[in-house]
Amino acid sequence: MTHGKGRKGAAAGGTPLRELLRAGAGGRRGLGAYDPSALPAGPSDKAAGRAASAALAGPLAELQERLYAAATAGDRRRLLLVLQGMDTSGKGGTVKHVIGQFNPSGCRITAFKAPTPQERAHPFLWRVEKALPGPGEIGIFDRSHYEDVLIARVRALAPREVLERRYEEINAFERGLAEDGVTVVKVFLHIGFEEQRERLLRRLDRPDKRWKFDPGDIEERGLWPAYQEAYERVLERCSTDAAPWYVVPADRKWYRNWAVSRLLLEHLEELDPRYPPASFDVEACRARLMAG
Amino acid sequence: MTHGKGRKGAAAGGTPLRELLRAGAGGRRGLGAYDPSALPAGPSDKAAGRAASAALAGPLAELQERLYAAATAGDRRRLLLVLQGMDTSGKGGTVKHVIGQFNPSGCRITAFKAPTPQERAHPFLWRVEKALPGPGEIGIFDRSHYEDVLIARVRALAPREVLERRYEEINAFERGLAEDGVTVVKVFLHIGFEEQRERLLRRLDRPDKRWKFDPGDIEERGLWPAYQEAYERVLERCSTDAAPWYVVPADRKWYRNWAVSRLLLEHLEELDPRYPPASFDVEACRARLMAG
Repeated sequence: MTHGKGRKGAAAGGTPLRELLRAGAGGRRGLGAYDPSALPAGPSDKAAGRAASAALAGPLAELQERLYAAATAGDRRRLLLVLQGMDTSGKGGTVKHVIGQFNPSGCRITAFKAPTPQERAHPFLWRVEKALPGPGEIGIFDRSHYEDVLIARVRALAPREVLERRYEEINAFERGLAEDGVTVVKVFLHIGFEEQRERLLRRLDRPDKRWKFDPGDIEERGLWPAYQEAYERVLERCSTDAAPWYVVPADRKWYRNWAVSRLLLEHLEELDPRYPPASFDVEACRARLMAG
Repeated sequence: MTHGKGRKGAAAGGTPLRELLRAGAGGRRGLGAYDPSALPAGPSDKAAGRAASAALAGPLAELQERLYAAATAGDRRRLLLVLQGMDTSGKGGTVKHVIGQFNPSGCRITAFKAPTPQERAHPFLWRVEKALPGPGEIGIFDRSHYEDVLIARVRALAPREVLERRYEEINAFERGLAEDGVTVVKVFLHIGFEEQRERLLRRLDRPDKRWKFDPGDIEERGLWPAYQEAYERVLERCSTDAAPWYVVPADRKWYRNWAVSRLLLEHLEELDPRYPPASFDVEACRARLMAG
C-alpha cells in the first residue's frame, strides 16, 4: 500500500476532502482537468478503501442519530445529498453502499425519472420541493433538478433562454435551502468514457444485471461530449458558497464510496448536532415508572 | 448453546417460522398465551442470534433486488411490513436493524404519528393508501391503520360502532391489497410489562436516549391492560388468510431482529421473484457498444 505525498495527512484530517474535491479547486476549469480514476486523498487501494469506508459507518450513523434527535427539540437542520453523473456512474451504488450505512428511517430518497405529465405542468422545481428532507432527515436525490439543465440542454427540451434562466433559479433556490437549514452536498460522480463502456458491457454480460440496461443508454452515450459540456456549465454556474459542487473521481467504486462517505462526514461534523436535554422532570418520571 | 427439541429443525427449514408465530397457532387465544421472552425457534442466545441474523442479510438483499428487478418488467408484486407494538417494543429498532439490511432505495418507510387535521378530515385509510409501496418495493409501516382500532379504542376516539366497522374495513382493504400483489406481513412486537419498564428507565438514564422519552408514554403505560385487550381484539378480528398477524416475542432484541428477518425471508422466498429476461437484442447492443 503506497500513499502519495500528503495523501495520508489529508485523509486523516489535514486538508478536508471537501476542499480537495470542490469544483474549481486549484483553479481547475473544464472536466478534462479532473481525472476520473484519480485518488486525490485517502485510501489508495481497494482493501484499504473498504476498510476506510467501514470505519466511517459508526461515526456517520451516530451523527445521523444526533441530527434526528436534535430535530425532536426544534432544530431544523438537515442534509441533502444530490447525486448526478452519467449512466453507470454509480448513483444507485452510492445509495446502496453509502446511504445503506444510515438508519433508513431517517433517510428520504427520491430517484427522479423523466417528468410525468403532471410534473411537466408545474415549474421544474415543484417536484423537487416536494421531495426535500424534513428537519433532522438526510435527503438523497438520485438525479435532481439539475436534469433540467443537463438532459434538457443536450436534448434541447426547452428554449435556450429558459435554460439560461434556470441556472439562476437553481442558485436562488439552493441559497434559500441553505438559509432554511439545509446543508446541500452536490456530488458529480465523474467516470471516464471507457469505464462507462465496460460497465455497460458488464450489464449486458450478466443475466442478473441486464434489467439495469436500457438500449437508450447507448443513445445517451453517443451524446457524451454534449453532456460533458453541460456538466461543465453546471459546475461553472451553480457551484456556490451556499451549495458547492464536488467532483468525485468515480472510476473506482470503492474510492467513490469512501469519498462520498467522507464528504458527508465532514459536513455532519461541521453541523455537530447535539442530543437535546430533557424537557421534562427526569426524576419525577423515574419515580412514576418505579411506582406503576 | 442449547436448542429445545425440534428448535433447530424449525429454524433450518422444518416448520416455517410463519406457522409457529402466526396469531392463533396451536389454538392460542389471548395475549397471555404468548410469552414475550419465548424463543420458539431458531437461535437461542445473543451470539447465535446475531450470527443467524447476519447470515440472512445476503439472501434478503438478493431477494429484494430480484423483486425490484422484476418490477421493471411489469411484475406488480411488493411486500408491506406492518409493525405494531407498545412503546419501546422495538418498532424503530426493527427498522434500523432489519430494514437496514436492504437497499434503502427500494424501501418506502412511513412512521404514522397522531393524525394531522388534514388526515383527520379524510377516512382513516386515506393516509395509509398514500404510503403503500409501489411494485417491486418493500413498504414499512411503523405504526399503521391499526392505531385506528388500538389507541382509538383505548382512548374512545370514535364511537364504538365506528370502531367495530373498522375491523371489517381493514380486512376488506387488506384483501384488496393481497389481490393487487401486495404481500402483507403484519408483526406484533410483543413485550412484557416489566421489560417495558426497564426500557423506559434506560431511556431516562442515558442522556443519548432521553430524546426518545415522552412523559406521555407513562400515561399510555397506565392503560396497559386496555391496550392488551385492544391488541387481542385485533389479532382475533384481523388475522386473515390474506393478511395474517404474527406475534413476535420481543423481550430480546436479538431474537426480535432474527424473527422479523426470517419472516420476511420466508415470504420473499415464496414470492421467488426473478430477474427479467432481456427485452432487447443483447448481441446488437454489445456490438454497438464495442463500436462507439
